[in-house]
Amino acid sequence: MANSKYEYVRQFESHDVLLPQTYIVVRIDGKKFHEFSKHYDFDKPNDIRALKLMNACAKNVVLKYKSDMILAFGESDEYSFILRKDSALFNRRSDKIATLFGSLFTSNYVALWSKFFTDRPLDLKHLPYFDSRCVIYPSLPIVKDYLSWRFVDTHINNLYNTAFWQLVLKCGMTPQESENRLSGTVSSEKQEILFTDCGINYNNEPEMFKKGSLITNKGDIIHVDVIKEIDQLFQGY
Amino acid sequence: MANSKYEYVRQFESHDVLLPQTYIVVRIDGKKFHEFSKHYDFDKPNDIRALKLMNACAKNVVLKYKSDMILAFGESDEYSFILRKDSALFNRRSDKIATLFGSLFTSNYVALWSKFFTDRPLDLKHLPYFDSRCVIYPSLPIVKDYLSWRFVDTHINNLYNTAFWQLVLKCGMTPQESENRLSGTVSSEKQEILFTDCGINYNNEPEMFKKGSLITNKGDIIHVDVIKEIDQLFQGY
Amino acid sequence: MANSKYEYVRQFESHDVLLPQTYIVVRIDGKKFHEFSKHYDFDKPNDIRALKLMNACAKNVVLKYKSDMILAFGESDEYSFILRKDSALFNRRSDKIATLFGSLFTSNYVALWSKFFTDRPLDLKHLPYFDSRCVIYPSLPIVKDYLSWRFVDTHINNLYNTAFWQLVLKCGMTPQESENRLSGTVSSEKQEILFTDCGINYNNEPEMFKKGSLITNKGDIIHVDVIKEIDQLFQGY
Amino acid sequence: MANSKYEYVRQFESHDVLLPQTYIVVRIDGKKFHEFSKHYDFDKPNDIRALKLMNACAKNVVLKYKSDMILAFGESDEYSFILRKDSALFNRRSDKIATLFGSLFTSNYVALWSKFFTDRPLDLKHLPYFDSRCVIYPSLPIVKDYLSWRFVDTHINNLYNTAFWQLVLKCGMTPQESENRLSGTVSSEKQEILFTDCGINYNNEPEMFKKGSLITNKGDIIHVDVIKEIDQLFQGY
Repeated sequence: MANSKYEYVRQFESHDVLLPQTYIVVRIDGKKFHEFSKHYDFDKPNDIRALKLMNACAKNVVLKYKSDMILAFGESDEYSFILRKDSALFNRRSDKIATLFGSLFTSNYVALWSKFFTDRPLDLKHLPYFDSRCVIYPSLPIVKDYLSWRFVDTHINNLYNTAFWQLVLKCGMTPQESENRLSGTVSSEKQEILFTDCGINYNNEPEMFKKGSLITNKGDIIHVDVIKEIDQLFQGY
Repeated sequence: MANSKYEYVRQFESHDVLLPQTYIVVRIDGKKFHEFSKHYDFDKPNDIRALKLMNACAKNVVLKYKSDMILAFGESDEYSFILRKDSALFNRRSDKIATLFGSLFTSNYVALWSKFFTDRPLDLKHLPYFDSRCVIYPSLPIVKDYLSWRFVDTHINNLYNTAFWQLVLKCGMTPQESENRLSGTVSSEKQEILFTDCGINYNNEPEMFKKGSLITNKGDIIHVDVIKEIDQLFQGY
Repeated sequence: MANSKYEYVRQFESHDVLLPQTYIVVRIDGKKFHEFSKHYDFDKPNDIRALKLMNACAKNVVLKYKSDMILAFGESDEYSFILRKDSALFNRRSDKIATLFGSLFTSNYVALWSKFFTDRPLDLKHLPYFDSRCVIYPSLPIVKDYLSWRFVDTHINNLYNTAFWQLVLKCGMTPQESENRLSGTVSSEKQEILFTDCGINYNNEPEMFKKGSLITNKGDIIHVDVIKEIDQLFQGY
Repeated sequence: MANSKYEYVRQFESHDVLLPQTYIVVRIDGKKFHEFSKHYDFDKPNDIRALKLMNACAKNVVLKYKSDMILAFGESDEYSFILRKDSALFNRRSDKIATLFGSLFTSNYVALWSKFFTDRPLDLKHLPYFDSRCVIYPSLPIVKDYLSWRFVDTHINNLYNTAFWQLVLKCGMTPQESENRLSGTVSSEKQEILFTDCGINYNNEPEMFKKGSLITNKGDIIHVDVIKEIDQLFQGY
């Protein structure tokens, strides 16, 4: 940028630097994806194409910033990238990290769309976009709890959504009836309802739906019980 | 998001809220666009397709957030969006504004690419991405100076780049020779060199190159002398 | 500070810089002054000694930072210092300004105590202390509203406290009875009650109680109707 | 605070909350204490009265916030208070913690002054004041390094100051000559100079000078080799 008498306006910029020696989590979330998924007729409760597209985008982000990455975890329209506590990426500037991760993810999403949605081109009036944020965690146990949080969330949401949609699709309930049926039930009751009302054994549902997707820093996409594997997953960090 | 014993990790999130009653500028910048433009053989010193693509993306962002927008201004691989001081967009959360503007812009850039680069498909190994940031300005004179800063920058950069590349392309200089020829010259001397050495009258260069592109909040793309029109441009804000 | 292998810990420090060209307000508030005023038997509803001590402390702060100061305003156990928008005091570092103003004010409070509370020495177990904060305001109308806010607050609090305590002291009500009597009344009704029940004309109350204290940047302490004089008070800033 | 149409100005306030589960260090520093110590003729290189006054103030701060405190450490005109990582003091609001610690310390300093400077009353034109800041550290090893940093700093500064002043006071050097004599010397050389030129064995200097003062969260003031005792000092935190 060139010099001019106007350049003083740069003094109004400020840049938050993330506390050193803390684990950085960058979480990306689809903006208005309820609407977006409706517009593109995503399968309910889970659209395999959409989940695989998310995974492919996240994998490219992971591989780009490999040496800073511990792992990434995604479900539905969100993805979390967990960076090493000694990462010096973009000098740990919060806005740089959040915006560049979000932009790179978005770029991949649009560019890869047609590979997964082969017969449904993106419509310029309904383009996908994502917000993103950085959160820092001071210690390994807490960042493990972060990942466990997203994992448990995946389980709870997917069980509910699976039961909700199967009651609608298989049992012919209205959305309202389905909601009422599930209201106040705990996990085991939802699994019971799924089995007795819809003939579906939740245990047989695809691993990607039940467990979300985890990407190692080598770029492998796996579906594991995060809670059980938590120590293994963070070994050495 | 569902409840679990892990949910306490949300307490580690923090959200910067931009000071009320200040003008918000969101500036988007291409990441490593020097490399990107080389890979896709952008015309030098200006690639009309690339500039028009930037404008098309920015226009879509402007129209999406029309009621919060005063105007947008772009040159090269950057764009600034200037929002009203009373904007309550995303509750003035800095990370939301920066990441969503950046993501929406990126989404458009990839989706619209083939419309402008008709014979050069995007290559998955070389996808575009952008950083973005929010800066706030407390008063109208200062936000006018912000826009003037970007405008003068456009002029200075474009004059230099035009002279530099014409000396290379028309006079057969090496980049090093061209750099030496221009070193230490002021604007009028660069225009003189352009005229005598390359036979080019800088005044006849396209307006979009010399003045950048300004988008009104109605979505009109214009090329004006920002310094002369500055009061007019911000009338009523 | 000398060099050592431990010095890297300085990287964990961060310093918020207040946005340039905004009015800085530093507000100082007594910590647990309800308790403090009880311990030292402050007169109710207003203790002239305590108010004059606050004013003397604030005056010294104003005179110390005279060239950065527009004015200061105080009531009860709080004081607001309003700085020029072009102030470069401590490079506009928020923590420096807040902590140094608070510390200087406190230092004066303890040192000047015996001048105002001549027969009641400070007790080491019950020392006064204050919190302080910086708030920035982007424009003159809003910083005027800030001062108006504190002024109206002074009026409302003082009218209530005067009525409350006179009902207790002159009419022999219990605090609970006094509270009930005033509950739900508007300003004019409180003045009426004061007059009919206690024989007190609120208009004749001391100006310092009704209007708070304003200190000009020359160090003059005055008691004025801030709302009426607001334009005058900020003339030239 | 009462309601009024001006109350919207509160929206301009913002409050930084310190990241949970990080050790909080509050460091208090004398403002212009070089000048202050000159005015009150502090003994050189160390004034026992002044150091004991600092310790007494810090002890009162420690005892006030005992349950949040791990320990405090001071030298010269500065003091660091190290809080537990699970402290919820003032909801971990950075400005509250920094300003209240600074104010309480200042209040004690002025109130206790005459106890230590028995024949030299404070002069209203030269009152002491302090800045203060909060810094957070994400892990025990780093917060230990923080304390080690201040300890090593104490040693380096005190050795230099002792040598510098003894050369002036005992050997009749000018300050410039003394500075030249010490320039470029390492610790062992300074100790050698002290011994041969001034007949002083640095090892026999008072512990408080050489090691600074450490206050346990029970309020005991001790002088220990912090580096050697570092694990012991933080045991259980």
